[in-house]
Amino acid sequence: MPQNIRTSAPDTETAIDRTVPDFPVAESLDEDNYFKTNIPPPYLKDLCAEAEQFVQIHEKTGRKVVLVTSGGTTVPLENNTVRFIDNFSAGTRGATSAEYFLENGYAVIFLHREFSLLPYSRHYSHTTNCFLDYMTEIDGKLEINPKYSEQMHKVWKKYNDARDQNLLLLLPFTTVTQYLFSLKEISKILDKVGTRALFYLAAAVSDFFLPHSKLPEHKIQAQDHNGGKLVVNLDPVPKFLRRLVDSWAPGAMITSFKLETDKSILIKKANQALDRYNHQLVIGNLLQTRKKEVVFVSKNYQNDPVWYRLSDEDVAKGVDIESLIIPAVIKEHQEWIAIH
Amino acid sequence: MPQNIRTSAPDTETAIDRTVPDFPVAESLDEDNYFKTNIPPPYLKDLCAEAEQFVQIHEKTGRKVVLVTSGGTTVPLENNTVRFIDNFSAGTRGATSAEYFLENGYAVIFLHREFSLLPYSRHYSHTTNCFLDYMTEIDGKLEINPKYSEQMHKVWKKYNDARDQNLLLLLPFTTVTQYLFSLKEISKILDKVGTRALFYLAAAVSDFFLPHSKLPEHKIQAQDHNGGKLVVNLDPVPKFLRRLVDSWAPGAMITSFKLETDKSILIKKANQALDRYNHQLVIGNLLQTRKKEVVFVSKNYQNDPVWYRLSDEDVAKGVDIESLIIPAVIKEHQEWIAIH
Repeated sequence: MPQNIRTSAPDTETAIDRTVPDFPVAESLDEDNYFKTNIPPPYLKDLCAEAEQFVQIHEKTGRKVVLVTSGGTTVPLENNTVRFIDNFSAGTRGATSAEYFLENGYAVIFLHREFSLLPYSRHYSHTTNCFLDYMTEIDGKLEINPKYSEQMHKVWKKYNDARDQNLLLLLPFTTVTQYLFSLKEISKILDKVGTRALFYLAAAVSDFFLPHSKLPEHKIQAQDHNGGKLVVNLDPVPKFLRRLVDSWAPGAMITSFKLETDKSILIKKANQALDRYNHQLVIGNLLQTRKKEVVFVSKNYQNDPVWYRLSDEDVAKGVDIESLIIPAVIKEHQEWIAIH
Repeated sequence: MPQNIRTSAPDTETAIDRTVPDFPVAESLDEDNYFKTNIPPPYLKDLCAEAEQFVQIHEKTGRKVVLVTSGGTTVPLENNTVRFIDNFSAGTRGATSAEYFLENGYAVIFLHREFSLLPYSRHYSHTTNCFLDYMTEIDGKLEINPKYSEQMHKVWKKYNDARDQNLLLLLPFTTVTQYLFSLKEISKILDKVGTRALFYLAAAVSDFFLPHSKLPEHKIQAQDHNGGKLVVNLDPVPKFLRRLVDSWAPGAMITSFKLETDKSILIKKANQALDRYNHQLVIGNLLQTRKKEVVFVSKNYQNDPVWYRLSDEDVAKGVDIESLIIPAVIKEHQEWIAIH
């Protein structure tokens, strides 16, 4: 029963909100204010303990450790977790990238939106194929359909290796507040491996949120003949990337993404992000071509951005653009380690 | 790599928004207005063609046909499909119910939120287990782990039977507008099988939306020292259930759900819904106990609501409450057919 109708693809014409101004970067005071006035997730201690243990293991193995963030954050409304603002993001970039980091010897902390795509299992979820379509009955026994079994076996082996060698730590978030508390704590833990730490921030983080202090204000207002309207009044989410660079993990190399729909401003926007946050690498991509090409913008080669593109042939064969992106990021990371 | 941290469970204290008033039921004029001023989904014709064909088949087979709606609708903001308001709903009730309708001989149209839980595959998705954890290597070959294979084989057989006999039609939605256009058109198609049609409306439909005519108004307003706030001004979604009862499918039996957190008002609220919409059955349930007990409220026995409860033993064994709900709904539907 394949589904041919798709209902949730984003519209490239309207996907980027051009009215969002460049909010000022968060300073130390903004950080204090945010983390004091919003409530940490109740599981934060457990999450930190898992991250601590994972990083300790890889302090010993000497592996490089990457934090990959993936999927969209939500903003609950009216202190009501049933109704929330969400961002469209399946988590494809993050989940695919994590696989290539693992293949290249990194240990991966995968901070992801709960139920978004995961490394390896992504090949078999969020598709038009039902899980059960990969199975078939052979001699009265349920088997993996031979059509799929070879490919699935390859994926399973990689998944199993990552698990057995303790190379992949899956940590979830749902709300933007959960995400920011987790990012801050994990960053400080990752700072222990110094320059061997890499940040690869592919999550789609909300631009606006409802501060905890304002939650009770937001009620339905009876103000028209229909009996009510919902008015939601949101504040900008502080731009903490600068705090990450300056204070949370100053030794690490930090990579962020810039998603645009207008190619003519992509590189300008990526350079602006570098200037604002003072980090090492921005990977620019266009919503409409993000699976085929990306551009690296870095202070190392500011006047000469570097494009990575799949050939039409590779696209047809289903090659992941991440197979080009990750080795290139790793090369930058090597250089970062060498010069520090 | 199981995940033990859960980030997205709703809080029963705040899950129901008590400030939402009872908006007036939609009249014929509201219907005209809504469907004229909002844009139908571009795939609506294809969706209708699939529904037509499915209903035609079962006009011939003489089967009863149920429309199960499942999962939450979204409300895009600023004509921007990247940012939207969502409702927490995994789709468990709808997906599980669909299975029991199929087992009881119904043909099922499953109108569901894209990527929410589906009948049969729900057993293996949205869990803490990765798909690949059900596999294992035996003699160098990837196999379904014998621990799971018997159970999976049972599920697969049911899934396969439903597919082979054309008993399950999966139709997706994402936004509330897509949902309402689809519901209206499918209802009119289903009306062709008259009293043999059953509606089982388990989807979590948004209370508020941004009418198409207002989309351009909603921009970031620069009004404070932070450089901007997002103000979202939403209208109530018309209450179309009455139109469904009176006009779209007057021959069908219609069942809706009432979710509450306060047991003391559950039955009153369910009765109010019956009075407002004039349909046949409301299934009341509490967020905190919805997998263990529900209450049927109907004009047939208004002063004597009927509870369906799992014993503690059944809960421990993992029995679905839907194994009690669906036979009881079907009994009501039989009576509906008999008296009309």
